[in-house]
Amino acid sequence: MQNMLSHIRSNRPVIHCITNYVTANDCANLLLACGASPVMADAPEEAAEMTARSKALLINLGTLSRDRLSAMVAAGICANDNGIPVVMDPVGVGASTFRRKAAATLMKLIRFTVIRGNPAEIGFLAYGHSSSGAVDAAATDPDETLKAAKQLALQRNAVVMASGAEDIITDGQVGYRIRSGHPIMRQVTGAGCMLSALTAAFLTVYSDAESCAAAACAMGYAGICAAQRMQQQDGNASFRNYLIDAFYHLDDDALKEQYEKLFISI
Amino acid sequence: MQNMLSHIRSNRPVIHCITNYVTANDCANLLLACGASPVMADAPEEAAEMTARSKALLINLGTLSRDRLSAMVAAGICANDNGIPVVMDPVGVGASTFRRKAAATLMKLIRFTVIRGNPAEIGFLAYGHSSSGAVDAAATDPDETLKAAKQLALQRNAVVMASGAEDIITDGQVGYRIRSGHPIMRQVTGAGCMLSALTAAFLTVYSDAESCAAAACAMGYAGICAAQRMQQQDGNASFRNYLIDAFYHLDDDALKEQYEKLFISI
Amino acid sequence: MQNMLSHIRSNRPVIHCITNYVTANDCANLLLACGASPVMADAPEEAAEMTARSKALLINLGTLSRDRLSAMVAAGICANDNGIPVVMDPVGVGASTFRRKAAATLMKLIRFTVIRGNPAEIGFLAYGHSSSGAVDAAATDPDETLKAAKQLALQRNAVVMASGAEDIITDGQVGYRIRSGHPIMRQVTGAGCMLSALTAAFLTVYSDAESCAAAACAMGYAGICAAQRMQQQDGNASFRNYLIDAFYHLDDDALKEQYEKLFISI
Repeated sequence: MQNMLSHIRSNRPVIHCITNYVTANDCANLLLACGASPVMADAPEEAAEMTARSKALLINLGTLSRDRLSAMVAAGICANDNGIPVVMDPVGVGASTFRRKAAATLMKLIRFTVIRGNPAEIGFLAYGHSSSGAVDAAATDPDETLKAAKQLALQRNAVVMASGAEDIITDGQVGYRIRSGHPIMRQVTGAGCMLSALTAAFLTVYSDAESCAAAACAMGYAGICAAQRMQQQDGNASFRNYLIDAFYHLDDDALKEQYEKLFISI
Repeated sequence: MQNMLSHIRSNRPVIHCITNYVTANDCANLLLACGASPVMADAPEEAAEMTARSKALLINLGTLSRDRLSAMVAAGICANDNGIPVVMDPVGVGASTFRRKAAATLMKLIRFTVIRGNPAEIGFLAYGHSSSGAVDAAATDPDETLKAAKQLALQRNAVVMASGAEDIITDGQVGYRIRSGHPIMRQVTGAGCMLSALTAAFLTVYSDAESCAAAACAMGYAGICAAQRMQQQDGNASFRNYLIDAFYHLDDDALKEQYEKLFISI
Repeated sequence: MQNMLSHIRSNRPVIHCITNYVTANDCANLLLACGASPVMADAPEEAAEMTARSKALLINLGTLSRDRLSAMVAAGICANDNGIPVVMDPVGVGASTFRRKAAATLMKLIRFTVIRGNPAEIGFLAYGHSSSGAVDAAATDPDETLKAAKQLALQRNAVVMASGAEDIITDGQVGYRIRSGHPIMRQVTGAGCMLSALTAAFLTVYSDAESCAAAACAMGYAGICAAQRMQQQDGNASFRNYLIDAFYHLDDDALKEQYEKLFISI
């Protein structure tokens, strides 16, 4: 594994995020905690130009709108043309026709370096809305999640990350399983969005499944550190702050130690 | 009173929020602290579909836009058709023609289960912009606030909540007065938005004025707990975190104790 | 120097902010911490009406969109017509054609009371995109920054604030240099946005370069207080909370003491 964090902190790569307004602030502060430079710009008029100046692009479907979708298309095509890695976070892709069609459009026009979602979202992208049985299985059974992730990875020539109590990361050939994190992460908005943003930053160092596994590992470890810091009256709001704070203090030695401990090749 | 919080924590109801981008993150984290599942989706293309999958709908007029208004109309009609409770928070309704007309459109097309605002907003909805004397009285004199709330409740067949130093809740017949909370709540953005989101979650348990009174009571008590936790250098930013944290720890026993202490039938 | 904070706390001036969704929550809480009343409204349909009810207007180019730009134009013209001070924060103005043209349109149609940006943004507005050498010099050399700030101030008949490790404030005639703050401020999103919002609030007391210098001084001092409060595990997320908390406790005596210590007339 590369010296991910020290590389990011020396190079301060610009990460262009076209993301939802609910967790944009948390994603920006998390990227800053890691040493990256977030740029949030979602107007179709400038999206491609912003991507061209960036080292990675994040596309997140939360609070999707027509205009934001146009910006994603323009930015994604620009990223592909310039060899800039692109992460897609298909937030709620199974929940509406609009998001389903948007995801289909994006996957048709853009080659994603990484697709990161929860198991249900990954299952949905792998099998579509007509196979609800397969989607439900992928959403609940880790072996089925892995199967769906592999299929999607091969279909899209992408690294696929399915995040949950256990993170599954695969490019269709090699695969990793990481059991880390803390249950309270499900009670804070944006934990998934932040992992997607982090992954985009890690891709600026090295663009492969191992980088994605390192990002998942970093998020899980930061979650554990943040949970350990909690006092009696702390809840999910304090946890959110501690999680970002943990990234501010995370270094490559701690990350490597965790990585070696948690890393399971599958 | 029902076991509101344990019910929400077991059922994890989806609450669809069409709300402003200033406090969306706080509303999401507050709902998660209570055990609910927030969904923030404000595109007209998907709003109704998102509502159909939810147990309650929140419509908040902050940072209103044409598109967000279209989404509110579609979502509200869907909620009414499916018996899903709807909360409206008429943020700044008296401040512009656009918001005044938007509120009028929404009230014409949608039956709201609950309308929650500050006394000025409630007075404005009850009396309109041509009766500034009556609106001013409702905004400043608790007896006049109650009168306005009752009138609006009867006009709209809704529970009306007027929140301030004292919360007034009425369905036009029964009414409650709750004096709780802490003055610092006026110095944190989103305290009102969060109460509206919380009310939407409580309506998934039982949809009446008493549920609304319980939500107001919970917010006031969480505000007191958060204020008690403040240290010398803490200000409104720390208070915001403590407020959400307090919900993370709130349980039905504490809520009932407060409710019995504070509850004044009027 | 006036009694800035006590004046703001007694008068609770409404500050209309047309700003980005990434840091809108932080800007709102910072204004509340100082005793001001933030109003965030960015629909073209209501922007002018909201400005007419306000004591100052903030225009921030972050997450710019067509609609938000229309709102800025309408609000800015209304502010000029009514003698309401206007602050522009040209976030990322050099990064895209869309922002460059938007800034040009705004500067053509609106007289800004204050333009506050980082040295690169100020250099870009002073020299345009065709003089990248001059812009680069202004971005990196404090003497060149001052030259660019003076030129822009005279061009636009505005106070110009270039914020960095050292803040430079000038109306083209008098000028101030303030070296304050803490390096961690560069690792929290929105420190610049918050300073622009704060400046808008300070302009409601007295509208000149000295008020702007006082705002810069207050932000620097709050940054120092927040950094001093940091514990071992705290990072940029906790710092953000401490920064807003520091404003909650800041008073005019502390501000004056800092101001006298830091103030360098140039």
